Amino acid sequence: MKTLNLSPLKKLEIIMEGVHKDFATDLLDRSGVKGYTIVGNLSGKGSHGIYDGHVMFNEDDVLIMIIVAVPEELVPPILEGFAPFFEKHTGVVFVTDIQVSRLVKFKN
Amino acid sequence: MKTLNLSPLKKLEIIMEGVHKDFATDLLDRSGVKGYTIVGNLSGKGSHGIYDGHVMFNEDDVLIMIIVAVPEELVPPILEGFAPFFEKHTGVVFVTDIQVSRLVKFKN
Amino acid sequence: MKTLNLSPLKKLEIIMEGVHKDFATDLLDRSGVKGYTIVGNLSGKGSHGIYDGHVMFNEDDVLIMIIVAVPEELVPPILEGFAPFFEKHTGVVFVTDIQVSRLVKFKN
Repeated sequence: MKTLNLSPLKKLEIIMEGVHKDFATDLLDRSGVKGYTIVGNLSGKGSHGIYDGHVMFNEDDVLIMIIVAVPEELVPPILEGFAPFFEKHTGVVFVTDIQVSRLVKFKN
Repeated sequence: MKTLNLSPLKKLEIIMEGVHKDFATDLLDRSGVKGYTIVGNLSGKGSHGIYDGHVMFNEDDVLIMIIVAVPEELVPPILEGFAPFFEKHTGVVFVTDIQVSRLVKFKN
Repeated sequence: MKTLNLSPLKKLEIIMEGVHKDFATDLLDRSGVKGYTIVGNLSGKGSHGIYDGHVMFNEDDVLIMIIVAVPEELVPPILEGFAPFFEKHTGVVFVTDIQVSRLVKFKN
């Protein structure tokens, strides 16, 4: 068996209203993020009440989760970029330690 | 750059049949959880066979994943609350260490 | 309160094009994985461009995330099994430390 070369990264899971998706992906793009994945059509309950996700053509109306893996040094600027937004809007960001085997996909 | 004040929490990912969603969210509410997010319409394979997720109006028929972030002290009572349920029903709970920047959303 | 008996596992989150789902689940089955959960209908942006997830009957056309929890010793063979695939195809695998309370569901 070959030795696996796993590298540490941070995974951000950004849960927010889908209507603000472009704000979030623009912020991520400007932060140097190389890619992200979006889970749509979520439902949930939070400090702003209950959200129901239903299948609809315009998924911007419901909650989404944007998943992104970044080098540790990108976490502070991204979280600071989102801070004013989350002062006003529903949502959270979870930060998790992960490992990936192909670092080239995440670093410039 | 301001110093980020990240706080540790535990993320629970509860994967279960959607038909039992109310049992799970009631248990979480009674445990003092302040919010959760639900990913619907999953498919999967587990010890009870193969589940196919398809787009349907009643998403209770398929697997869901309930995502919740809680202080560490809430993990044991929540897992103990789910234990009898998972003796009889398909599903799992994953516990992960995470960090969040806005602890007020998760603690009373 | 009873003492919880949490056991460490590794969670793999495999994000890939849904059209290759059977390749991935076959590889997981042959690796000894006892179950997995699939989140369908994702959208994303990565090194191969922008992917849009829309609700459609054939969800194989969009990105999926396969979630699987495995004992640590299964991580290297699974990642090595996927390595040639990800040389040619879009996608990533995130590895995360998790804990579960019912280890019997994940080990033979």
